[in-house]
Amino acid sequence: MTVVTDEERIARATLLRISEPAMRGLVRHVRVVGAQQAVADIAAGASVPDVSIETLQVRLRGADGSADIAAADSIGARLVCPGDAQWPQPLDDLAWIDADCFGLWVRGPANPDAVGFRAVAIVGTRAPTDYGLYVASEFGAGLAERDWAVVSGLAFGIDGAAHRGALAAGGMTAAFLACGVDLAYPRGHAALYEQICAEGLVMSEHSPGVTPQRPRFLVRNRLIAAFAAGAVVVEMAPRSGAASTARHAARLQRHVMVVPGPITSLTSSGCHQYVRDNPGAVLVTRVEEIVEQCGHMGELAEPLVGPTTARDRLGPAVARVLEGVPATRPAGADVIAVAAGVPLPVVTAALAALEHLGLVEQTGDGWRMSALGRRDRRDRRVRRDFGLDEVAMD
Amino acid sequence: MTVVTDEERIARATLLRISEPAMRGLVRHVRVVGAQQAVADIAAGASVPDVSIETLQVRLRGADGSADIAAADSIGARLVCPGDAQWPQPLDDLAWIDADCFGLWVRGPANPDAVGFRAVAIVGTRAPTDYGLYVASEFGAGLAERDWAVVSGLAFGIDGAAHRGALAAGGMTAAFLACGVDLAYPRGHAALYEQICAEGLVMSEHSPGVTPQRPRFLVRNRLIAAFAAGAVVVEMAPRSGAASTARHAARLQRHVMVVPGPITSLTSSGCHQYVRDNPGAVLVTRVEEIVEQCGHMGELAEPLVGPTTARDRLGPAVARVLEGVPATRPAGADVIAVAAGVPLPVVTAALAALEHLGLVEQTGDGWRMSALGRRDRRDRRVRRDFGLDEVAMD
Repeated sequence: MTVVTDEERIARATLLRISEPAMRGLVRHVRVVGAQQAVADIAAGASVPDVSIETLQVRLRGADGSADIAAADSIGARLVCPGDAQWPQPLDDLAWIDADCFGLWVRGPANPDAVGFRAVAIVGTRAPTDYGLYVASEFGAGLAERDWAVVSGLAFGIDGAAHRGALAAGGMTAAFLACGVDLAYPRGHAALYEQICAEGLVMSEHSPGVTPQRPRFLVRNRLIAAFAAGAVVVEMAPRSGAASTARHAARLQRHVMVVPGPITSLTSSGCHQYVRDNPGAVLVTRVEEIVEQCGHMGELAEPLVGPTTARDRLGPAVARVLEGVPATRPAGADVIAVAAGVPLPVVTAALAALEHLGLVEQTGDGWRMSALGRRDRRDRRVRRDFGLDEVAMD
Repeated sequence: MTVVTDEERIARATLLRISEPAMRGLVRHVRVVGAQQAVADIAAGASVPDVSIETLQVRLRGADGSADIAAADSIGARLVCPGDAQWPQPLDDLAWIDADCFGLWVRGPANPDAVGFRAVAIVGTRAPTDYGLYVASEFGAGLAERDWAVVSGLAFGIDGAAHRGALAAGGMTAAFLACGVDLAYPRGHAALYEQICAEGLVMSEHSPGVTPQRPRFLVRNRLIAAFAAGAVVVEMAPRSGAASTARHAARLQRHVMVVPGPITSLTSSGCHQYVRDNPGAVLVTRVEEIVEQCGHMGELAEPLVGPTTARDRLGPAVARVLEGVPATRPAGADVIAVAAGVPLPVVTAALAALEHLGLVEQTGDGWRMSALGRRDRRDRRVRRDFGLDEVAMD
């Protein structure tokens, strides 16, 4: 692991302050001469191909990398640079498209590199339908339950629902902003922003205090695409920002996954169009399919079967015990007996049966749902919510 | 055009009466020796590979092809055989999958061959949602408005909605039954059946009086798939009959089109699964997309773009040679020279050029149309028959 010197870190803070992200000429120059020499070249007014040196020189006069690092530190943010242990290595792939990231301002307790090794992006329209919100939230929670981080852009709509789904399941979520990490944007997501700062990761190329501007959202999307193993588009209008994330993901050889919806829904029309235009895009309808796509061997989705689940075959007492088993935090049989309203000896026998069916698992601290059990519980919730148990199949 | 003799027609009526559709051994034997000889072989108890002659012999004793034709005539039905002017030539492609159709009992005023040249199948579950019914009905009407016939199976649910949509728009619709054309099945669709008999086409391989049986629905689906240029699946559960139609269509190189829906809907789950499992399947969300898919060159959404095909760029001599190349059974250059009325050296050069364009292919036995060439020929016939060369496209 390279050690990032103070000089290198200050030079990168300076570059982040004076440049807009993904300026192709500057990116190439930094890749060849390094950050410190690039700053020196700008100061000297050297001629660099495809770089408007004068503009950068003007900005350089007011820039102070050390002050930015100090300011960030005062709000609990840090600058993570290539070579740092926390640098998310997937971002290095941005060099393939000449859109390298010089460094990331980061808030939050997690390690960006560790998170990036098992992350899926969920993106979509800022004006979704209830269906889209439901899917984003369920996918966010489902990925979190399978120990995948959920990456998005903190926007209204699909982004927010995906972040919230992951947080609600006690999972990891990461937000890339189009402004400084000290700004909660949009304002309406201030509480969500605070929660992600406290439990997950908020990241940006933009220096502290930089406000969001329209082009910054699009160029920010390449970070979301690069950071994650794949991008899931839940709902989008044609030619939307989510489509740019999908296109970046495709160019970066990430998996592009698209959620279908009713053809009568405008917010699904962009999804369908994308699949029609991009043969590499894959339809996804269940979290298992996302994990199968992005995960490693051994994470294949089980084939879709009819509405029969292990749970459907349980007797009423056992079913009540199952309802009393916590999803993630283990509880003892006595606690479950109270929760389920079932006598302890029945609970003990029921838990053994449920473990045999693979619906619950025993840990050092007691009993909790297995991954299968959690999925089964969620499936039943979906079927109940949509009245599917009453529909005759052919 | 071959003339179908009375003896040939009676032999085919007899074959339809004594066999089940798509008996592979019998199909191959008839392809080699013809219908009349095949009936004679069965009567004589000849040994035919992969054919249970005894069973057919037993059935043959009670069969009377002439009587079937007379009985059909009394209810306004006719037997259409290969070689008849009304024979739908797309059904000949069933030979690719050893599932030839010996003949079709037909009710209705339309010409099956003319209808089959511009037909799309709409199929799906018998237990659809309101969404599926809406889409099937809208697509049926929209295709009819664009002068495409709607083909389906007269079943409850998607099939019925598609037929009704086409009829409501004053268009053409064709139903393939899994029973005799004299039977309205299902009973609840008796009025729809009568309307299609009066305005469209009701067709079946099954002799008059034959009742529907479960396996007959699946084998019937290959006719729907072969007859139409493409199949649209609107809603289906996994492993449903509609999936068999889609698979047949794919094997017959027809377009397979699938309508997406909410991932929370079980009746769309089969559609999504099919698209995930079959990269050749295309999502469709609008009638225009179906027409663009099935209409090939000349019916793209772009306005006033001429119907330019590889064929359109050929000189007159090469075009005449192309007309002389057989569709499936290869012929030597000398035979083609006679058929085209073009000197042999010109034919030799033209064939090389046509091969370069991908319109013909050379086999051990001579030259024949490639898949592209056959499609191109059909497109040109469609355009001619429907006067499309003169019409501006939408």
